[in-house]
Amino acid sequence: MAKSRTRRRRGGKPASDAGDLRVIPLGGLGQIGKNCTLFEYGEDIVMVDCGLMFPEEDMLGIDFVIPDVSYVEERRERLRGIVVTHGHEDHIGALSFVLPRLDVPVYATKLTLGLIRNKLKEAAPTYEPRFHEIRTGDVIELGAFSFEFIAVCHSIPDGVGLAVHTPLGTVVHTGDFKLDPTPIDGRITDYSAFAELGRRGVLLMMSDSTNVERSGFTHSERLVGRTLEEIFRLHRNRRIVLATFASNLHRAQQVFDTAARFNRKVVLMGRSMINNVDLARELGYLDVDEGLIVAPQDIDKIPHNRLVVLTTGSQGEPFSGLVLMSKGEHHHIKLSGKDLVVVSATPIPGNEKLVSRTVNRLFACGCDVVYEREKEIHVSGHASQEELKMMLAIVRPRYFVPVHGEYRHLVRHSQLAQEMGIPAKNVFLLQNGDVLQIGKEKAQLREGNVSVGSILVDGRVLGELEGSIMQERRDLSEEGLLAISIVLSSEGALLGPVVTESRGFLHTDMAEDLHREVRQLVTKIVEAKSRKGDFDREALILRIRGRVKDLLRRHTRSDPVIMPLISIVEG
Amino acid sequence: MAKSRTRRRRGGKPASDAGDLRVIPLGGLGQIGKNCTLFEYGEDIVMVDCGLMFPEEDMLGIDFVIPDVSYVEERRERLRGIVVTHGHEDHIGALSFVLPRLDVPVYATKLTLGLIRNKLKEAAPTYEPRFHEIRTGDVIELGAFSFEFIAVCHSIPDGVGLAVHTPLGTVVHTGDFKLDPTPIDGRITDYSAFAELGRRGVLLMMSDSTNVERSGFTHSERLVGRTLEEIFRLHRNRRIVLATFASNLHRAQQVFDTAARFNRKVVLMGRSMINNVDLARELGYLDVDEGLIVAPQDIDKIPHNRLVVLTTGSQGEPFSGLVLMSKGEHHHIKLSGKDLVVVSATPIPGNEKLVSRTVNRLFACGCDVVYEREKEIHVSGHASQEELKMMLAIVRPRYFVPVHGEYRHLVRHSQLAQEMGIPAKNVFLLQNGDVLQIGKEKAQLREGNVSVGSILVDGRVLGELEGSIMQERRDLSEEGLLAISIVLSSEGALLGPVVTESRGFLHTDMAEDLHREVRQLVTKIVEAKSRKGDFDREALILRIRGRVKDLLRRHTRSDPVIMPLISIVEG
Repeated sequence: MAKSRTRRRRGGKPASDAGDLRVIPLGGLGQIGKNCTLFEYGEDIVMVDCGLMFPEEDMLGIDFVIPDVSYVEERRERLRGIVVTHGHEDHIGALSFVLPRLDVPVYATKLTLGLIRNKLKEAAPTYEPRFHEIRTGDVIELGAFSFEFIAVCHSIPDGVGLAVHTPLGTVVHTGDFKLDPTPIDGRITDYSAFAELGRRGVLLMMSDSTNVERSGFTHSERLVGRTLEEIFRLHRNRRIVLATFASNLHRAQQVFDTAARFNRKVVLMGRSMINNVDLARELGYLDVDEGLIVAPQDIDKIPHNRLVVLTTGSQGEPFSGLVLMSKGEHHHIKLSGKDLVVVSATPIPGNEKLVSRTVNRLFACGCDVVYEREKEIHVSGHASQEELKMMLAIVRPRYFVPVHGEYRHLVRHSQLAQEMGIPAKNVFLLQNGDVLQIGKEKAQLREGNVSVGSILVDGRVLGELEGSIMQERRDLSEEGLLAISIVLSSEGALLGPVVTESRGFLHTDMAEDLHREVRQLVTKIVEAKSRKGDFDREALILRIRGRVKDLLRRHTRSDPVIMPLISIVEG
Repeated sequence: MAKSRTRRRRGGKPASDAGDLRVIPLGGLGQIGKNCTLFEYGEDIVMVDCGLMFPEEDMLGIDFVIPDVSYVEERRERLRGIVVTHGHEDHIGALSFVLPRLDVPVYATKLTLGLIRNKLKEAAPTYEPRFHEIRTGDVIELGAFSFEFIAVCHSIPDGVGLAVHTPLGTVVHTGDFKLDPTPIDGRITDYSAFAELGRRGVLLMMSDSTNVERSGFTHSERLVGRTLEEIFRLHRNRRIVLATFASNLHRAQQVFDTAARFNRKVVLMGRSMINNVDLARELGYLDVDEGLIVAPQDIDKIPHNRLVVLTTGSQGEPFSGLVLMSKGEHHHIKLSGKDLVVVSATPIPGNEKLVSRTVNRLFACGCDVVYEREKEIHVSGHASQEELKMMLAIVRPRYFVPVHGEYRHLVRHSQLAQEMGIPAKNVFLLQNGDVLQIGKEKAQLREGNVSVGSILVDGRVLGELEGSIMQERRDLSEEGLLAISIVLSSEGALLGPVVTESRGFLHTDMAEDLHREVRQLVTKIVEAKSRKGDFDREALILRIRGRVKDLLRRHTRSDPVIMPLISIVEG
């Protein structure tokens, strides 16, 4: 784990303006991922969500990124708890690292808690979390705050929006939501609760910006069910392999229902798919008849055309179910011309190439593949423009902060709020670490930010990883490295032959000659220095670097990292 | 430059079946990029197109990829020429490397030759190409082949499709095309020529598969003109910055026309934009009034609202005009709230993140940005499903080969051809290096492929770069490197202190302790070996690697490349 601070605190710790409310996003603004927001009033702090983000492609070797919560760590005694809106990775993924260190109660719905528990079991098996299960309609007192939970519909069950009642007024946090009027579990976004809050007066609304670029309404999850129905009808003689997000249990429910109607069994593939379906069945979020699901090892007992395989890998993730199948490396499934593969997802930005390569490989296996956007085999879980406008219209907040989006989404959502009548001066385009301070009269950005770099999680390493390490990795990845070992006497005389080694750099057919030339050059440099009697280790290293660089550029036109190692052997 | 052979020749050189036609794609199938196809009959070979491909993200340090043309190099005396369909990089980009080595005549239209000439000037300034300018309707004899050139409309002017008349019949190669009925230059795809060929009988058609996944028709370029008109009308008080592909001269023409109508001057930014517009004006492909274009250094003499900046960078390319502006690093332009930026392009697959980051930065500059697909500020240059069907319907070939596409595009285009009535046995889904042999009676894939790896161009290095080098770069990029220098006597006794250096690996706060531990461990290992008197260099290296690896895993849970360098100093 590694800290890369993008912004440092400027003004020291915020003054304790007793009567003011402070909203501090630690993550999730200017990025999609690692959502984490603090609400602070007087001596009380509550954290909402604590997610991870997948790394940018220039974060070499990094597995994921979590928010820097040192601001709360330093004020742990004031933290009253963590409230979690739903169970997606970008809302819960950092908890396994952060929770054991903060050790405060967690408030979330049953499924969300179940998903957090599964993550903790792996990452921090000895830690005993303090979980408080909440239901929609519940009101929880956390210091000066009272949290009310409102049902919202999203691409994972059991999501909630929040009404945070504070001495200054009510803050509405939508969570991730869409206004699907016909959700699979019948649990619609509770318009009337939001409208009632609006009627009573809302101080501030924070709303999901993910799909602000899309006009109209996001389609209902039920549309996918209709498409599945059609696909099952058209392909009665094929095995059907369907890949989707393991957390989209509504989608899974529709696959189970359609399979049952068409008299097919379902096999689950991919660890997270199996775990999530198990958990959801145990907690009552999936309604699946006994006997519908068949174990992977029994797959060959079922005729092809009586089977559906529900798998991970819809994002082309390496080592996921679908990707292993597409490469012919899956233990239980060999794909062929008898299979239909349905990729029930659209690529998350950045995954386009992975998905595209997987689809190409699936075609090369001979399967038929349904994957295009226009085929209506996937719908988003986030509200589009008209839904966002509707939310603004029913909540009618005094202040507005767009959340959950890249910078361009936040700008567009700010514009939308202004179109909906919120004055520009009441719309705040916050960035991570900003402190929005709301008083009785007005709201404003405080001078001085909270420190909010990103913590880069590199394998299981926990430590500080400076930006320079990333730069070194980039340099190595571009041109490789040449190491040169030189043995000198303490007077600087060369005591043995120069040794060279390279990685990721030399083309084998040129390697030997070039290595020899480098060794000859370095030998000459050292001997010249030694004759002059001016032995200076640093100067020698600089000179070797410069001269070898020139030689390589001249001969190979390449520019690897050059690393001289000097050993001094005492006479 | 580096060769990575994905397939090696199996059956030696194709037997010279005197009466057969052989079609051999060297690139462009199973990928979008490096288009290159050979037509071979008797002793005659003609190459069609010779393009480059941009590297995949796991090709670390690689700038671009070109086709392996060693098959033709070995038969240079039989190569009658290279025919080029249009001037896009994926059709001409490899010529600057390949043409000086093959040294054969090049046949193309005026603009295409101009673009090739510009590339050669930089990459091979001393080479004197033999260019033959062709016009549509021309017929050129090249050995046993006679090439006829047919106007096609595409996102660059002056593109052609080909009718290749052979002793066995006519091959139609569509080139990259769309059926835009209202192109900017009035030069529509010559339906009637294709229809006439169809009427007389076509042996084989090879057709552009890029947009086979899109239903309906591709919009006319003129649609973009209407959108520009609207944007200019809505934003009379702003400076307008428009980024698009430097080769899309139709788009440039529309920007010039709209600017003139709205009484604005145009400034060009980005080297390729300036070069292409210069060339196109010189050759008569752009109609621009004297005085409309203003030099970048005069930008401040023109009021903001009287200016349009036409720039490169629509793909978020590092160091392009728009990207420099978005970072505030452009010499001539500082963007602000007074600017409207129009990104007149959609991201090429793989560039999504680059484009997205650029748009985020543009918003952060305070500009308004128009960039979404739904805003109709870009149209594709490739035919969609209905156009592809129309082409199949009017050419009615006996055999069909989909070209210019990833594997999934080729599969979908094959299916489309079958829907259009071409029997499955006459549709050939070729891959690079396949040899399609067409005789009087039948066509078939020959046994034995042609060698067609990719040549990876790494900076300006020309040489062999084995796959293992890419793997080494990936390893270095993931976890960095630790080098260990050890000085031994010829008997294996340690003569001096062990020296360590790392790159891209150690977190600074742990570095010193860990380096010390590594040095202690290595010292112990060497001394133990030395006491036993069993000095074996390779065994020692293996042992050090293994033990240090364990130590690092235990302490840091990371796994860098470990590189021991052993210097032997003679007693």
